[in-house]
Amino acid sequence: MRRVASLVFPGFELLDLFGPLQFLGMLSDMFEVVTVAENRGPVPSNQGVSVNSVRTLAEGDDYDLLLVPGGRGTRSGVGNQALLNWVAQAAGNAEVVMTVCTGSALLAKTGFLDGKRATSNKLAFGWVQQQGPEVEWVKRARWVEDGKAFTSSGVSVGMDMTLAVIARLRGRETAEQVAVWSEYEWHDDPSWDPFAGLYPD
Amino acid sequence: MRRVASLVFPGFELLDLFGPLQFLGMLSDMFEVVTVAENRGPVPSNQGVSVNSVRTLAEGDDYDLLLVPGGRGTRSGVGNQALLNWVAQAAGNAEVVMTVCTGSALLAKTGFLDGKRATSNKLAFGWVQQQGPEVEWVKRARWVEDGKAFTSSGVSVGMDMTLAVIARLRGRETAEQVAVWSEYEWHDDPSWDPFAGLYPD
Repeated sequence: MRRVASLVFPGFELLDLFGPLQFLGMLSDMFEVVTVAENRGPVPSNQGVSVNSVRTLAEGDDYDLLLVPGGRGTRSGVGNQALLNWVAQAAGNAEVVMTVCTGSALLAKTGFLDGKRATSNKLAFGWVQQQGPEVEWVKRARWVEDGKAFTSSGVSVGMDMTLAVIARLRGRETAEQVAVWSEYEWHDDPSWDPFAGLYPD
Repeated sequence: MRRVASLVFPGFELLDLFGPLQFLGMLSDMFEVVTVAENRGPVPSNQGVSVNSVRTLAEGDDYDLLLVPGGRGTRSGVGNQALLNWVAQAAGNAEVVMTVCTGSALLAKTGFLDGKRATSNKLAFGWVQQQGPEVEWVKRARWVEDGKAFTSSGVSVGMDMTLAVIARLRGRETAEQVAVWSEYEWHDDPSWDPFAGLYPD
């Protein structure tokens, strides 16, 4: 059984969080998902609907997997030292670290991605790059794996990346099974990226 | 501005709800999303994480759009007369009614889908059919539109269906824009369904 910490903060993007949690949550014999935030209780998403955090940052940073979503809230997040300290510790402790969309900005800001390959949302790519000048940013990629770091492009792509994480931890057949249960067509090629070309470099 | 009522109940499926709400929520000048449940406050999903309902069934059933997710909770939901009464009223009042996965079982149980074409999750199709014997169930379909009723297949398919709803209400270009913002490849053909064939009739 692996414990998954899902960081949540005001202004997180709904699908960044719940796409991955749907797929991990379908394997309830393998993953236990815990929402973690600065305070326990309701945390409003960028779309208004709020989710509940059940654990605080202060209550620990030792999880098997770490999931960092993106969203408008990352803009203030990169200036929140308590949050960044927790992300740095939790990323160090985890077996697998996942970011979706601008969640990679938070992870990059801690220095954890320095010297590693990573990607992010194509719409906010320039701003994300500024948060980690020592990161080897890959613009054309649906997601990027480098060691234990999995970073994905925008909003919906966290789902494809999560299936790749499941494939690594439990085999490709299980990942494909989860996709079928969800009637989801897995884009399993991390280099397939028709969206990168839509924005100027 | 259109008000969207998202029904939530214990044991709803995360992505059934949050895929559609991500896309509708990105058009915040057009849609206002409200979570509705029997009681106000935390409602646990099938995956454990809880969302907050901000309105109760008793507080009204007059919304422009209605979204009914699926999940394990629909199994007891079809026996909950107060819930079914609200779904029947809200569906009658709405301009567009959307179900994802086994959410169509709840809608079918009210009689609202009688004589209409509809679909559901392929894994639970037999059980869903039993909830609405007068419905014209379509097994091979990613989603089905019949008048104001949009019913979709399992878990991830609510996203494709929601883009079709956006296309109807605000034009195809807007739906395509939302897909690009999310780096999502829209399966825009409702008859594309590689999953229906995986299960016996």
